[in-house]
Amino acid sequence: MISKQPSIILVEPQLAENVGMTARAMMNCGLYELRLVNPRENHLSEKAIAASSGAEKILQSAQIFNSTEEAIADLEQIYATTARHRDMIKPVETASYAAENMTQALQNDIRCGILFGPERTGLHNEDVCLANAIIEIPLNPEHCSLNLSQAVLLVGYEWYKRQINAPELQFITNKTTLADKEKVLQFLKYFEDKLDNCGNFRQSEKRERMIINLRNIFTRNQLTLQELNTLYGIINYLNRHQPD
Amino acid sequence: MISKQPSIILVEPQLAENVGMTARAMMNCGLYELRLVNPRENHLSEKAIAASSGAEKILQSAQIFNSTEEAIADLEQIYATTARHRDMIKPVETASYAAENMTQALQNDIRCGILFGPERTGLHNEDVCLANAIIEIPLNPEHCSLNLSQAVLLVGYEWYKRQINAPELQFITNKTTLADKEKVLQFLKYFEDKLDNCGNFRQSEKRERMIINLRNIFTRNQLTLQELNTLYGIINYLNRHQPD
Repeated sequence: MISKQPSIILVEPQLAENVGMTARAMMNCGLYELRLVNPRENHLSEKAIAASSGAEKILQSAQIFNSTEEAIADLEQIYATTARHRDMIKPVETASYAAENMTQALQNDIRCGILFGPERTGLHNEDVCLANAIIEIPLNPEHCSLNLSQAVLLVGYEWYKRQINAPELQFITNKTTLADKEKVLQFLKYFEDKLDNCGNFRQSEKRERMIINLRNIFTRNQLTLQELNTLYGIINYLNRHQPD
Repeated sequence: MISKQPSIILVEPQLAENVGMTARAMMNCGLYELRLVNPRENHLSEKAIAASSGAEKILQSAQIFNSTEEAIADLEQIYATTARHRDMIKPVETASYAAENMTQALQNDIRCGILFGPERTGLHNEDVCLANAIIEIPLNPEHCSLNLSQAVLLVGYEWYKRQINAPELQFITNKTTLADKEKVLQFLKYFEDKLDNCGNFRQSEKRERMIINLRNIFTRNQLTLQELNTLYGIINYLNRHQPD
């Protein structure tokens, strides 16, 4: 568990199911600190637990507050998530930019929290004005309304990405390994010899071009030792079992 | 609508509600091309339409196929989303990296599609092996299972971000504008004069430090003209109505 993390603060959530789904989204993103301001329904109801889909420990450890002011009292940097511009004079950051800022802040022991409003209305202006900045998730302006848990998921995802720095591209070879170029060239030579022994391939005017295409095909895609063996087998199979 | 966009391909989705929620998530991300391979339930049922929350036009224009092969036939670059490593020799990309690659590919008129598997099992290996690459969304390994629509949302979000390049940080001033430095300094001078006229502030040994703190407070947060007027009013109010 990443110890320095922002608190997720749901202000007056209406449906227990959405609180449960939020817990699930939080756990997806390695976020465990949930605060609830005046939830309308019981966040430990069966519905909530079922919707959390295995993240009930987040629901169980959630802190409950009577006001947003109390919920943010021990924190130092607060973000308010809104789907639309408000009549507020405030910096508006993308989820990505805010995640970067929060990561920096948390590293400097500045405690952060993110406010999410009630499902139907979003945050009240009285809550937004408590925040240092607004997070606006860049979404299709024709359809930017998100389910509460999805808003938490996107903000949490941007934060989590920065904590783990997953490699952008991996080549998974499982139990086998990449073939070195000697083995790939040996295979290509074997393939070409087989072709040369087939009918009039050696004399074909297309031979040179075909060999180049063949080499491009099989060098472009990083063959593994296991795959080379499969290819040897297939060529032999084709070569031995001529059609009638 | 962004004309060059990847197709979202749901392979054997189980619940109509999830197809509806997927349509909603797609529309959030400006994605309109939905393909369904053997959906178990009717994707135009009331449940599906309600879950799409205003994105029913995506459901109505969805194309239905009998096999993944048919669903990808007219496309050139296919991604398979998986939550866990498979016994597949294949590049594995983050959602972010794949979104960048797809953006480039689409600009070069390479048609792209993204496969999402059934809710309970995820994609079958027979589908994964049809893809050029795997997308693995970097999530908490202790809890990486996502709802179908949430997986679509995260992949779609990464793609959409690259299409619009929303400004990372905006300072919203609405109907007012930022005060220029002359006006801010005039205000600070006014404030300091008021203070100097208060009791023994002018002689205080803390005066210099307090003036510097005051200037830092009010220059750090980009005051607008409207806010300057509010501050003038507040200072006058405080100054005129001394406590008894």
